[in-house]
Amino acid sequence: MTDNNRLRGIFTPNIVPLDANGEINEAELRRYVDWLIERGVHGLYPNGSTGEFTRFTVEERRRIIEIIADQNRGRVPILAGAAEANVRETIKACEAYHEMGCRAVAIVSPFYYKLSPAGVYAYFKEIADNTPIDVTLYNIPMFASPIDVPTVRKLAEECPRVVAIKDSSGDLPHMMRMIDAVRPMRSDFSFLTGWDAALMPMLLIGCDGGTNATSGVVPEITRKLYDLTLLGNLDAARSLQYRLLRLFDAMIYNSEFPEGFRAALRLRGIQTGKGRQPQSPGQQLGIEKLSSELQCLLAAEGYTHEPVGGCPVGQSLDPEQVARIVQGVVGELKRLGIAP
Amino acid sequence: MTDNNRLRGIFTPNIVPLDANGEINEAELRRYVDWLIERGVHGLYPNGSTGEFTRFTVEERRRIIEIIADQNRGRVPILAGAAEANVRETIKACEAYHEMGCRAVAIVSPFYYKLSPAGVYAYFKEIADNTPIDVTLYNIPMFASPIDVPTVRKLAEECPRVVAIKDSSGDLPHMMRMIDAVRPMRSDFSFLTGWDAALMPMLLIGCDGGTNATSGVVPEITRKLYDLTLLGNLDAARSLQYRLLRLFDAMIYNSEFPEGFRAALRLRGIQTGKGRQPQSPGQQLGIEKLSSELQCLLAAEGYTHEPVGGCPVGQSLDPEQVARIVQGVVGELKRLGIAP
Amino acid sequence: MTDNNRLRGIFTPNIVPLDANGEINEAELRRYVDWLIERGVHGLYPNGSTGEFTRFTVEERRRIIEIIADQNRGRVPILAGAAEANVRETIKACEAYHEMGCRAVAIVSPFYYKLSPAGVYAYFKEIADNTPIDVTLYNIPMFASPIDVPTVRKLAEECPRVVAIKDSSGDLPHMMRMIDAVRPMRSDFSFLTGWDAALMPMLLIGCDGGTNATSGVVPEITRKLYDLTLLGNLDAARSLQYRLLRLFDAMIYNSEFPEGFRAALRLRGIQTGKGRQPQSPGQQLGIEKLSSELQCLLAAEGYTHEPVGGCPVGQSLDPEQVARIVQGVVGELKRLGIAP
Amino acid sequence: MTDNNRLRGIFTPNIVPLDANGEINEAELRRYVDWLIERGVHGLYPNGSTGEFTRFTVEERRRIIEIIADQNRGRVPILAGAAEANVRETIKACEAYHEMGCRAVAIVSPFYYKLSPAGVYAYFKEIADNTPIDVTLYNIPMFASPIDVPTVRKLAEECPRVVAIKDSSGDLPHMMRMIDAVRPMRSDFSFLTGWDAALMPMLLIGCDGGTNATSGVVPEITRKLYDLTLLGNLDAARSLQYRLLRLFDAMIYNSEFPEGFRAALRLRGIQTGKGRQPQSPGQQLGIEKLSSELQCLLAAEGYTHEPVGGCPVGQSLDPEQVARIVQGVVGELKRLGIAP
Repeated sequence: MTDNNRLRGIFTPNIVPLDANGEINEAELRRYVDWLIERGVHGLYPNGSTGEFTRFTVEERRRIIEIIADQNRGRVPILAGAAEANVRETIKACEAYHEMGCRAVAIVSPFYYKLSPAGVYAYFKEIADNTPIDVTLYNIPMFASPIDVPTVRKLAEECPRVVAIKDSSGDLPHMMRMIDAVRPMRSDFSFLTGWDAALMPMLLIGCDGGTNATSGVVPEITRKLYDLTLLGNLDAARSLQYRLLRLFDAMIYNSEFPEGFRAALRLRGIQTGKGRQPQSPGQQLGIEKLSSELQCLLAAEGYTHEPVGGCPVGQSLDPEQVARIVQGVVGELKRLGIAP
Repeated sequence: MTDNNRLRGIFTPNIVPLDANGEINEAELRRYVDWLIERGVHGLYPNGSTGEFTRFTVEERRRIIEIIADQNRGRVPILAGAAEANVRETIKACEAYHEMGCRAVAIVSPFYYKLSPAGVYAYFKEIADNTPIDVTLYNIPMFASPIDVPTVRKLAEECPRVVAIKDSSGDLPHMMRMIDAVRPMRSDFSFLTGWDAALMPMLLIGCDGGTNATSGVVPEITRKLYDLTLLGNLDAARSLQYRLLRLFDAMIYNSEFPEGFRAALRLRGIQTGKGRQPQSPGQQLGIEKLSSELQCLLAAEGYTHEPVGGCPVGQSLDPEQVARIVQGVVGELKRLGIAP
Repeated sequence: MTDNNRLRGIFTPNIVPLDANGEINEAELRRYVDWLIERGVHGLYPNGSTGEFTRFTVEERRRIIEIIADQNRGRVPILAGAAEANVRETIKACEAYHEMGCRAVAIVSPFYYKLSPAGVYAYFKEIADNTPIDVTLYNIPMFASPIDVPTVRKLAEECPRVVAIKDSSGDLPHMMRMIDAVRPMRSDFSFLTGWDAALMPMLLIGCDGGTNATSGVVPEITRKLYDLTLLGNLDAARSLQYRLLRLFDAMIYNSEFPEGFRAALRLRGIQTGKGRQPQSPGQQLGIEKLSSELQCLLAAEGYTHEPVGGCPVGQSLDPEQVARIVQGVVGELKRLGIAP
Repeated sequence: MTDNNRLRGIFTPNIVPLDANGEINEAELRRYVDWLIERGVHGLYPNGSTGEFTRFTVEERRRIIEIIADQNRGRVPILAGAAEANVRETIKACEAYHEMGCRAVAIVSPFYYKLSPAGVYAYFKEIADNTPIDVTLYNIPMFASPIDVPTVRKLAEECPRVVAIKDSSGDLPHMMRMIDAVRPMRSDFSFLTGWDAALMPMLLIGCDGGTNATSGVVPEITRKLYDLTLLGNLDAARSLQYRLLRLFDAMIYNSEFPEGFRAALRLRGIQTGKGRQPQSPGQQLGIEKLSSELQCLLAAEGYTHEPVGGCPVGQSLDPEQVARIVQGVVGELKRLGIAP
């Protein structure tokens, strides 16, 4: 295996469109695959966190990869999320995705239980020793047991099947520590960031690419940011990174993940359907409000038109200013003897 | 529904014995069910965290309840863990466990993704509105999205099917806040603690019982602690709570959960087999060392004999004292010109 | 030193009244000392977190103890907060408070920097070896470096001057672990809880008392809770603990600490003045709202009259219900073509 | 005020050398100031976290600035840490440092108590409205109340005296969010990073410089990294950033902060003396071991000679390999009937 084979570029962790019954919308999923590839993403990454792998059944997870691999017809490499209930089931999934022609699998660190580094190591070691397909470690400490630097180093050293790590911590020095520990002995090992907010600096310190949820919504921008950074066009890249950050923040912080991405994707014309996680009435209202904000951000980038009523120019209301006004009114009412 | 129907007492979150192939050891599981009931536990709680529900397949989780319900033959109420991939699958599990004669299900708050209170509410609301069986909310913030007090209150208010909360946070004032918010309107609502370390004080401030992992290993002690506390025999209860705390700490803090409980259970004569989460060589050594400590603790309570070589009387080595000795030696070596 | 000498009961961590210029209001502080002692607190604890020791100068901290010791005239034991910039300065404070006749000092674990257990040990060891006055360790992990169980045990073992720990973590099993580790070798060692929300259960598992901020506002209730619990009148104690919890929560969670306690104290007639930490306009409005809620809670206990306009009977507004109403209105407006 | 006046470059948060009695070693501090300026640092930053401001008295903090300002003789700008017990005392320090000719003060967010954003705002607002000298906000969320993006924006908007933020979170997207929020309205506002591990990428996304503890130990490297990055020599900069990261990690993670920096500084020939925070025997041994590792790292960079005995070439011992060997030996002993 050589350097040339290293995983590189932007892999899209795609959302799965659902129909009115909450079932996989195969036709729309196929259309979405084409839409993404046409817009330049380097690879696909189904059954990841954005793909809500935990909310599908075993059978559905298999079916999703099957549809995507079939529609892809070898155009781009597929990185298939393969984590199942336990090591044995996960290895079965690895075998199935290998047969479907996937380039590699991505396996999230054990979740629910928070494992120690020794437990995380033992888990990946047993999988790596028994899989027919290359494995990408998936570190997402906000959701799953963290994979620390010595564990990555040891797995890279002992397991030729482990060929990459996807890290969604967004912690830049952590990424550098992993690169520093692994690259000297494994030139074929790839480092991918899952944190779109830091894609440009991650690439600049040595990352090979990213599995970025924004590339499922604005593949044009994420891809362009990757290209500009690699070309060393830093001023243009920096400007694009700041704009991507605004979009990323809007999609990730104002709703239950990944509802913001689903809402934005609808604005791009993909019929995502409703997600499987129920939303309270308050959350549904929030999504509508978010959708309008996203439309403004997407319109500013030229991907859709402005919402009816236009987009705000100035800044949002400052709660302290509001408080000061209220205080003034209350004071006045007190002075007049109207309020207690 | 009346007060008399309220869930009460000690429900055992039981480990599932596995055979040499890692498959469910049905014979031993049946023997374990009898063993527990004979030793006085008030109920059984399969497919909980101690039961490692996430490491079994959908079919296995069903089979576990089936075996236990069959073996139980109605002797004690069964609280069946019913969380599946999404709301629809979870409701199917609720229906199945209802048909098997379970008293209620326990549903852990959504995990992997960390949901907001609104998301947690929406999730339980949809389940509660569509289940044929009583539901116990399961709050375990170290592993899953936290269920906060307003959410418990709202669900208790709107959903007659929600009849209890099992809280494993160990946070006593949090438990009091829930009781304070719910009990006035729902006298049938039960509060169970999953944190053995605080069982006695939890009962004293108003809990109805517990789902306590220690009761799977030393059902005699956990049950006796419950009885003594309810009888108001506080001195005896307090002494027992301190001894249970030592055992609990040894089982929970010195290995990957629930390996310590598995090791202790083997000392009680239940053939647990190996767990499904692989253990590194270092972890296996750790379990052997832990097993010897557990044997001493269990021997002190009369449940097994001391290990060959006996049990330690004094205290463990103090790292600072060791450091001081090493420092002295190094200093001497330096003085003699041997060390740099 | 015998058991009889052990620190016991309720020590009040008192707020320091300030005058219109933000200086110590000596007259009101003296009046407050008398007010507290007359209402039954067992001891005073100035220069604690509630006393905002970090917001006073070195000279002011000395002066506060001086005033309180003088006004106290030996009526109750004084536990004086003595933490200064470094070990040498802290020892000087210990000497000063010893001369002023304080019963002991309380020294918070090092803060700002988060020290390891070894660092925490070294810090207290050097102080304990050089102080003329008994020392209470002060563990408040939300603000300062945590003091873990082995550190408490080692200090208790090696330092006769260390006679107590005040723990404000509210973690009941942690308290039990400390008692289990220390009490067998040090019958004179005292365990005090700083977490009012769990005072009754803490006393029931073996604590000797508390340094409770509520006792600075409703000394009558905190003292009565202590007495009822020690007398074994558990039903009455439990009921009081629940009521104290409501008051505690209202004072601690709805404003910047300790502003809620200051607001409540004003309702009891103590002229606290404004605190030294500036409050934004929004925060000032919040304090006014809180003050009204506190007045209702205090009125319910008979310590003041209801605010003009009376106290609410029902529950607060549910944001989800509001959202549902808004959603309905918006839907209707849309249907009528008024909203986009 | 124009862009040209913006704070830029590497400001050294210097350690204060102490003599054998633990007092400020004025002669060595003066020598250290010259040593730093000769090696190219752009500014000095006394009374920061590295300078252990909390472990000095008020008088000592003043004296430190006085010595440094005097020795500096206007060669480089001084950013003086000015946080005192409360707003009034902090403003007095601002006035004093203004008279001493400092360029600006740096004020850490309130610590010990964890304040809300509104409280953090109110604190800085009152200081900024009353100080005669420019203010740098200091955000270090691991030690003090976090300063969030809206708070920075509001202070930048309302307070011309607030001219910079020093952020030690190391969170790159957070830095970008602050720059995005403030730069459009305040071209004179400066963004400095306190996290050496990410200095190069921070500069690349728009930071103006750093207050970096490594520059107190290897000013040559930190300065060179700054220059290379600004010159766009990214390959050389990246390589240097990785080497700086190794040194930074060694100094920060293997001892109580800032003992690693003190140990390294001694290797560079500055007589730091012992710190004021007592070290346990185990910690002292740790510092000796660390010192040897640091010597190897510094020798590799050409700043000192290798320690007697040379430096290790390969990697450190893997605990799992050790465990496997031990397991083998124990198994063999068991087989021979020697171990139980």
